Amino acid sequence: MTAGYEVHVPGHITGFFTPHPADDPLVAGSRGAGITLADAVMVRVSSADRTTVIVDGSELRVPAVDHVLGKLDVTARIEASLSVPLGAGFGVSGALALGTAFGANLLIHGRHAENELVRLAHAADVIAGTGLGDVVAQHRGGAPIRLEPGAPGIGTLDGIPQRRAVEWLSLGDLSTEDVLTGDTTAIEAAGDTALERLRDRPTLDRFMDESAHFAREAALLTDELEEIIETVESAGGRASMAMLGQTVFALDDDLSNGGFEANRHEMGAAGVRILQPKTED
Amino acid sequence: MTAGYEVHVPGHITGFFTPHPADDPLVAGSRGAGITLADAVMVRVSSADRTTVIVDGSELRVPAVDHVLGKLDVTARIEASLSVPLGAGFGVSGALALGTAFGANLLIHGRHAENELVRLAHAADVIAGTGLGDVVAQHRGGAPIRLEPGAPGIGTLDGIPQRRAVEWLSLGDLSTEDVLTGDTTAIEAAGDTALERLRDRPTLDRFMDESAHFAREAALLTDELEEIIETVESAGGRASMAMLGQTVFALDDDLSNGGFEANRHEMGAAGVRILQPKTED
Repeated sequence: MTAGYEVHVPGHITGFFTPHPADDPLVAGSRGAGITLADAVMVRVSSADRTTVIVDGSELRVPAVDHVLGKLDVTARIEASLSVPLGAGFGVSGALALGTAFGANLLIHGRHAENELVRLAHAADVIAGTGLGDVVAQHRGGAPIRLEPGAPGIGTLDGIPQRRAVEWLSLGDLSTEDVLTGDTTAIEAAGDTALERLRDRPTLDRFMDESAHFAREAALLTDELEEIIETVESAGGRASMAMLGQTVFALDDDLSNGGFEANRHEMGAAGVRILQPKTED
Repeated sequence: MTAGYEVHVPGHITGFFTPHPADDPLVAGSRGAGITLADAVMVRVSSADRTTVIVDGSELRVPAVDHVLGKLDVTARIEASLSVPLGAGFGVSGALALGTAFGANLLIHGRHAENELVRLAHAADVIAGTGLGDVVAQHRGGAPIRLEPGAPGIGTLDGIPQRRAVEWLSLGDLSTEDVLTGDTTAIEAAGDTALERLRDRPTLDRFMDESAHFAREAALLTDELEEIIETVESAGGRASMAMLGQTVFALDDDLSNGGFEANRHEMGAAGVRILQPKTED
């Protein structure tokens, strides 16, 4: 019986991206940019004879989490609580995989270093088909720019050196897999342009502008989302769509100022935060 | 007149290292491992016609800060407050350089991305002779392992995936330059061994053991520091010396349990935290 380890992982909203599939899940990933949301996902990992995953009180199958535990050869009780919705573009699967990796590593007395745990969680999210770049972004924190796709040691990251509050509202889910198995030509062209323009002026305002431009160019906006974004823009703000979810996000009070009831998070300055009792080597 | 930008940077204590000097300050650096201390250094950067640096109320010359501002072509008023001492092995010069880079970048409307600002601060700390690896470690946060020396794009980092509280007590300063311009053969041999052993078992307990072993092997301990460390060890704890300062550090309550009056910090989960008013592009 152990008290378990509590790991906090930020959520991650991608504003624009280009997908880079590959046979090797460590090489697969995405280029693009996003923002992380502090205190979005809490994962408690404790020792158990058989693995169960409980998210906000309900038992769930989360393939990326099962994959991480299998690779570490650990069975564990995973209890997660979320302050962002599942399947709506917040990278929750990746966060659960990452939190599980950090927590389970402590159950086996710290056998692995951070980069190896991030690699494991990244590969698990890719194999499960639930994310291509959330894990590396969540581990970095802040406003991560994915310069080159892939896990630590393969991909490269930069960041936008600013922090502002994030507002969001969500209308439901959207299947990452459906979008990524369709024709991605428009996504790729729009994503490349957006990344180039952000690197030229790496600010959060430019990030918001490029995200909104990308969402339109890549033809991923539904009418409902488009209407919310236009309302925010009419009120002098900026908003865009979380890739990939039926979610609109904005900085500061831009959604509230547009008349919407929005959720609010600080930007995730930390990558992964671990609370743990004192342990022995 | 601007309100200025407030940037929080963790302190960084190196437990063991090998120095890697080089003509190019981006290539120069160190291998080794350390722990970061949350909320150690606050830097407020505001627009001014001429540069002044005020640390805890006193005007100081901090060459690494001057270098950063010169490179960015910015004059600014820098007001810092510290919760760790200067020159005692906490990487304060590096933290001031890093905080100044992030803050000054916002004064010029966010011209640079994070990695570029970290490169700038790393080079400034190396050129000033005040640090070889603090800046990259402070930007990563947590318990950074410096696998390969140098700035982002050249060096590589990993981390120990655990977080525990840090206690420290300081007896005064020690010149980084004096140690690093002397014979470093013993330091290099001991540092290589410590890094290899930490990578084999990347836990905080192993880090503490290797740090204490390194301090003895590298013959950097003064009698006074040795005595404190032995007292902590007699009480069943672990402690070591901050490289390079007359400072002893420990995890959890190990210094208090040894009977010492110690300062206490959470481990820095975040790299750099920026508080700022809403800005325009």
